[in-house]
Amino acid sequence: MANDPLSMWNDGPARTAILDFVARVTQNGGRDYVPPAERIATFDNDGTLWCEQPLQVQVFFALDRLQALAAKDPTMKDRQPYKAFLEHDLKTIHELGKKAVFEVAFATHAGGTEDEFDPAARAWLASARHPKLGRLFTQCVYQPQLELLDYLRANGFKTFIVSGGGIDLMRAFAEEVYGIPPEQVVGSSVKTRFELRRDRGVLVKLAELGSFDDREVKPQNIQLHIGRRPILAFGNSDGDLAMLRYVKSGDGPRLALLLHHDDAEREFAYDRDFNLSPLAEALDRAAEYGITVVGMTRDWKAVFPAPNSAGP
Amino acid sequence: MANDPLSMWNDGPARTAILDFVARVTQNGGRDYVPPAERIATFDNDGTLWCEQPLQVQVFFALDRLQALAAKDPTMKDRQPYKAFLEHDLKTIHELGKKAVFEVAFATHAGGTEDEFDPAARAWLASARHPKLGRLFTQCVYQPQLELLDYLRANGFKTFIVSGGGIDLMRAFAEEVYGIPPEQVVGSSVKTRFELRRDRGVLVKLAELGSFDDREVKPQNIQLHIGRRPILAFGNSDGDLAMLRYVKSGDGPRLALLLHHDDAEREFAYDRDFNLSPLAEALDRAAEYGITVVGMTRDWKAVFPAPNSAGP
Repeated sequence: MANDPLSMWNDGPARTAILDFVARVTQNGGRDYVPPAERIATFDNDGTLWCEQPLQVQVFFALDRLQALAAKDPTMKDRQPYKAFLEHDLKTIHELGKKAVFEVAFATHAGGTEDEFDPAARAWLASARHPKLGRLFTQCVYQPQLELLDYLRANGFKTFIVSGGGIDLMRAFAEEVYGIPPEQVVGSSVKTRFELRRDRGVLVKLAELGSFDDREVKPQNIQLHIGRRPILAFGNSDGDLAMLRYVKSGDGPRLALLLHHDDAEREFAYDRDFNLSPLAEALDRAAEYGITVVGMTRDWKAVFPAPNSAGP
Repeated sequence: MANDPLSMWNDGPARTAILDFVARVTQNGGRDYVPPAERIATFDNDGTLWCEQPLQVQVFFALDRLQALAAKDPTMKDRQPYKAFLEHDLKTIHELGKKAVFEVAFATHAGGTEDEFDPAARAWLASARHPKLGRLFTQCVYQPQLELLDYLRANGFKTFIVSGGGIDLMRAFAEEVYGIPPEQVVGSSVKTRFELRRDRGVLVKLAELGSFDDREVKPQNIQLHIGRRPILAFGNSDGDLAMLRYVKSGDGPRLALLLHHDDAEREFAYDRDFNLSPLAEALDRAAEYGITVVGMTRDWKAVFPAPNSAGP
């Protein structure tokens, strides 16, 4: 890799911006040198590290969970928003918007413990496949991003996820797939209750949202979880804009990157029309805000890993 | 260190329990082997890593801050709870209890940004001294614990603070003094608001408590921030009991340690009588809960670092 870093990235302004930035912050004695402890990089997950179309993976997980719940309680089939989920009614789901959809998704796990959630999520991820791409969801990750994460870590960066996705679903695969351990995953979360069950301390998931990690909540959660302003951030929607501007407006060298899904052939093409995570302001004002746009078509040699080369 | 680990600890059951535990979890191929990624150790801070008598350092920081605020608003001197703080009325402060006292302490910083807080905290810590011990607060840390943190890290552990103290005050010295980076510090926090001030993204501290990281909130925050059940935890009060039991009741090898302040000569002697952080149930039922009690008098060769050997 040292001889050919970012080999999955085409030569162009995005790849050059990344290579230049990393060279500058790692050059000992250089004007822009940043000590390793401060080389914090934060990545959105849905749409930035893996595919979020036609629905975020979180929602597919909830769909399967709802099927199981509806088998026990058939009245769910007649009640919204469950009805829309159970009928895979994308139009109605999209109309709800991201936060409402995610709240339903999170609520499907209420009452269970964190100890129960993790193996259930791992079991689901081990076999659940993307409805259009056919591959495991854990293989719907972007190969150039896996390479970028590795490249940053090889250069002393600590890589974090800061995503609207449920924190514990992401933790169930982030270490194996992205090389990012649970303590470096920040996401949306529900409140929990600590209980002793037969002398075993457990955390019970409640139906109440703790934090919806989107938009201005991202910098808030970065402060809460990381406590240091990152020097690099990567997102793909207006939900990442506050994080990108927070990172970009710190002192010293900073790099903010925005993935534009313009690749209908190899993945999907969308931006402001995707109601579950629109991209409009960040794209329109990227130049003004100093954000580097990554065009999937132009900048990536490939999108997904070769079959069976990644994932658990 | 490899030849004489924990040299600041006297031979005895506590030192033996630690050495045995670390030997077991690091023995490759052994029955109790734990992979490095899962070697998570969580430490309370006040009273576990540094002195919390006669008041937590957080409160001394707030006292100085309140003096500055009262200089601008003299009516504060006549209003409780400020009056008690400004008059160093320990009796009234202790009667308020830990949560109420800490809420006052956190509120003294409302309206400022996180970017402003950090240098202010560092400046205060660089010169503020313990009223009785005379040394810098950052030198009121426990030398045997610094050694234990180093020893655990040398054995592949990742060390975290999980404390009721304000998360950002701890982050202002934890890296330099304990070798624990900001992203491994979990503490109490206030809510923040993200703002763009002259195009710079900042986080403004609000007067509203986000999380008071004590008692059952500790395991909740461990799940939120770390996402993995630690295998070792160290506390010193009933405020740590939920964390100790959470850690202890996981599967596989676990070590829960409880510091008992019984050393009036070298530090302080207290337990159930300290209203700002009482130790009663955890001490009375330590054996039943499988918690190893560390007696400061018996187990530690020295308490504090030699002058000028630690601290920023």
